Amino acid sequence: MHDKQSTKTKLTVADETVSQIRTLPAFEESFPSSQKVTQGELSVPFRTIELTGGEPPLTVYDTTGPQGCDPRQGIPKRRQPWIDARLKQSDGNVSQMHYARKGIITEEMRFVAIRENVEPEFVRSEIARGRAIIPANIRHPELEPMIIGRNFLVKINANIGNSAVSSSIEEEVEKLQWATRWGADTVMDLSTGNNIHATREWILRNSPVPIGTVPIYQALEKVRGKVEDLNMDIFLETLEEQAEQGVDYFTIHAGVLLRYIPYTAKRVTGIVSRGGSIMAKWCMHYHKENFLYTEFERICELMKRYDVSFSLGDGLRPGCIADANDEAQFGELRTLGELTKIAWKHDVQVMIEGPGHVPMHKIQENMDEQLKECHEAPFYTLGPLTTDIAPGYDHITSGIGAAMIGSMGCAMLCYVTPKEHLGLPNRDDVKTGVITYKIAAHAADLAKGHPGAQARDDALSKARFEFRWHDQFNLSLDPTTAREFHDETMPAAPAKTAHFCSMCGPHFCSMKLTQDVRDMAEGEDLVAEGMAQKAREFQEQGGKLYVDRDPSAAE
Amino acid sequence: MHDKQSTKTKLTVADETVSQIRTLPAFEESFPSSQKVTQGELSVPFRTIELTGGEPPLTVYDTTGPQGCDPRQGIPKRRQPWIDARLKQSDGNVSQMHYARKGIITEEMRFVAIRENVEPEFVRSEIARGRAIIPANIRHPELEPMIIGRNFLVKINANIGNSAVSSSIEEEVEKLQWATRWGADTVMDLSTGNNIHATREWILRNSPVPIGTVPIYQALEKVRGKVEDLNMDIFLETLEEQAEQGVDYFTIHAGVLLRYIPYTAKRVTGIVSRGGSIMAKWCMHYHKENFLYTEFERICELMKRYDVSFSLGDGLRPGCIADANDEAQFGELRTLGELTKIAWKHDVQVMIEGPGHVPMHKIQENMDEQLKECHEAPFYTLGPLTTDIAPGYDHITSGIGAAMIGSMGCAMLCYVTPKEHLGLPNRDDVKTGVITYKIAAHAADLAKGHPGAQARDDALSKARFEFRWHDQFNLSLDPTTAREFHDETMPAAPAKTAHFCSMCGPHFCSMKLTQDVRDMAEGEDLVAEGMAQKAREFQEQGGKLYVDRDPSAAE
Repeated sequence: MHDKQSTKTKLTVADETVSQIRTLPAFEESFPSSQKVTQGELSVPFRTIELTGGEPPLTVYDTTGPQGCDPRQGIPKRRQPWIDARLKQSDGNVSQMHYARKGIITEEMRFVAIRENVEPEFVRSEIARGRAIIPANIRHPELEPMIIGRNFLVKINANIGNSAVSSSIEEEVEKLQWATRWGADTVMDLSTGNNIHATREWILRNSPVPIGTVPIYQALEKVRGKVEDLNMDIFLETLEEQAEQGVDYFTIHAGVLLRYIPYTAKRVTGIVSRGGSIMAKWCMHYHKENFLYTEFERICELMKRYDVSFSLGDGLRPGCIADANDEAQFGELRTLGELTKIAWKHDVQVMIEGPGHVPMHKIQENMDEQLKECHEAPFYTLGPLTTDIAPGYDHITSGIGAAMIGSMGCAMLCYVTPKEHLGLPNRDDVKTGVITYKIAAHAADLAKGHPGAQARDDALSKARFEFRWHDQFNLSLDPTTAREFHDETMPAAPAKTAHFCSMCGPHFCSMKLTQDVRDMAEGEDLVAEGMAQKAREFQEQGGKLYVDRDPSAAE
Repeated sequence: MHDKQSTKTKLTVADETVSQIRTLPAFEESFPSSQKVTQGELSVPFRTIELTGGEPPLTVYDTTGPQGCDPRQGIPKRRQPWIDARLKQSDGNVSQMHYARKGIITEEMRFVAIRENVEPEFVRSEIARGRAIIPANIRHPELEPMIIGRNFLVKINANIGNSAVSSSIEEEVEKLQWATRWGADTVMDLSTGNNIHATREWILRNSPVPIGTVPIYQALEKVRGKVEDLNMDIFLETLEEQAEQGVDYFTIHAGVLLRYIPYTAKRVTGIVSRGGSIMAKWCMHYHKENFLYTEFERICELMKRYDVSFSLGDGLRPGCIADANDEAQFGELRTLGELTKIAWKHDVQVMIEGPGHVPMHKIQENMDEQLKECHEAPFYTLGPLTTDIAPGYDHITSGIGAAMIGSMGCAMLCYVTPKEHLGLPNRDDVKTGVITYKIAAHAADLAKGHPGAQARDDALSKARFEFRWHDQFNLSLDPTTAREFHDETMPAAPAKTAHFCSMCGPHFCSMKLTQDVRDMAEGEDLVAEGMAQKAREFQEQGGKLYVDRDPSAAE
């Protein structure tokens, strides 16, 4: 208990809100009637939701990872034997793309095939083609592999990261667990403060999902914030340090070229990417080309030794509606396409980062240009926000854009929390951001006609129609909130089996009335088929009842 | 004080949450640095947001109506002289469409022309054509006229309404004021309890926005909930009562035809519209056609005497993803198109209600079919929700669909609150629903390229880039929330003028770095134009710096 108390005194400024003081609720509390299960010899995780009313359980994708482990021990290293076996005959390139191109189906590929309910060969071919990636550093054996590509389920990323004032290891691990609890498929650690190395270590040793970073942040810390002191050696040293720890993908702003910077001069919000503005400042200081670009292949050489994936950063993404789809943005995108080919020459996996702030009518162009210029490498966008006028609600302004670009083929959506533009997210904000993005990703999966995606919608709607309230809650993305909202107006336990609810009451219950209608139809021997037949006869005999009469005679 | 206490004892079950006990914050508290202003001889309301940094004030559309009136007195009857003058020479049809078709530009049309910044003749022509409506009952003189049509700003509706246990007059008026405070363009009173007549009276006497109702609810109350006792006489008596009070539009489910009911039998969620299920039950009971359809012209005759607009109800709208765009739904839509022509024959204004629950890839078909079948009468949809799996977050699942269908031409979006499917919304839910839908409507206006819509985005983004924090808050849809979120992590007053913020700190501030880059560009005489020229020269001289070299030489 003493430990816990002392931990609390180390909370960051942002963490001093009430919501941060509680400890994480148990898995069972967040997901009543759910069980973690595994499938196959590779123990692929799923969650099974038990239902009532004679309905079969529903199995859903699960990102929550092993529960109840001591964070100081970390979670089990399930990939270690797979990695060790492969290293015995490695040629120095351990990337999934390298294996895929040699025709080898790795355990990671088989694992995601089960997770996504597709054939392992399809996974291999998509990775070989560069159309999907499995971010999976060989130094991150705790990983439960997942795949990012537009022919798979749409994924979401959550950002975490401490600020300059450090928080405890337990707290950082809790942030990770909280994000994956609600469905984050990958997590980016954007820490910039002290203990950055130790924090990252604890996150990695406890993470079942791929971890991404923006290494230029730590490189800049190493030169005490002096942009002009940055150079390739310091950058590579930082990459090596982070790759050794097990980071699965690096955001690298190698597309911020000297010649694009002038195009940002007339923008309303200039350069809004932190990494992008750092590299722009370096370029301007020396009036030289971005060293991440000129020495890009040195980075590739390093990354293939660990299988770290590129997340080619969009340092010149628009920061407002006015700046969307401009020359700076699309110029950089073309350069990212160029760099993609170079990375692929080394069999290094690549995804491409995208905006940002884009009005709805300009979203399709982003997807089209990305597919064309970047050779179908997976697209990974931040939102995009579809308007700038709602700070405090940017999970929603961006959730709209995220759902749309997801439906168009964007492979992963980086979440935005309600605190975007205003401050650091607390635990509630992280949850709201993740749930909003699960909605966007799932809506996109439905729109893409992803096989099986609609099963959960159908199960929940059936439960709703049949007044199986607990099933409705348990099938939802956030059972706790659904139940709490229901109980605000109808708290009694029996109400959860009542065949009406507080919204309309028994007289105005459409569900009950529908049942009455169906009963009447049964009674009159007008069951579905029979009535449809009658309706067809009616239409054949004359169609529109009303307009065939003289309208003036209607009174 | 005693009055207030006794009022609280009459709170509904739903109202017993803490959020309901407070009284409404003042207008100035919700919108700091804002002033209500009027334009022109018709005193058209706007809100002006004062800015710092030498920026001109920004003027925005305003739905808040007169402030500080005694609800027992109601708000001023601004339209009374306009109405009185016209009634002197009326031919018994007082609808805006009737005047428009006679070539008359009414005060209401001039009023909305100023509000929307278009020509009055354009307003008249759109109304004459049936492509827009001004819901404006002559018995609702308190109205500040507004227009619904796809060539105008996208509008939103908020639903209010007491439950069986009555709440006080003041509370009902407060719900109305709260919804219009945040931007509701129309409000539907869906009350079904006692005092339904008195409640409606007080809402109308205090409403600056059009009020809609679903009269079948009150008609059903009149026959004590016995659907089979409903008939046209009781329905018309109810319409007359509500029209006399000043209701501006009626939802009427005249398209639920006997022959469509069988198509709902195999649905996952049957009929989910309350009005739709009532009429379906009536049809099934008598095995007769819907009397609202067979005697539709009697309704038209009544409505044109008051200028009540039709909101032709979609009683067979889908209640889940599985049921979207089915035969029942589109069959009814065709019938609504038929009825539109009949209403137009009487010069009665019409809008068409739409779904509901629709996955993203089926939304465009809804808009296309509605335009085609209903002759371009304005479309008014509920969301649509783009997935069923997130009860508790259906403002978001539906905000995605609402923004999309708005961008495609839907004229008004009926809000959905976080409590949808779970219980009755409290005050916080109403605000969240309205703000979410303002986002959807505004994102749609941007996507449609509505003239002037982007001015607010640009002003806010400029304030953001220049660290004018208070301006950023005040320009947002919800200044209070934006400021509170900011102050959670950076509460000190001076921070609001600081040229960085808690999210990144000074070293990692992209805005500050961008300024550094611009300063350096100035110093080197490489201001925007000059640098762009250099960039062009560079590109002409060889283009891609990197790929023209031998990639293997890069190290």
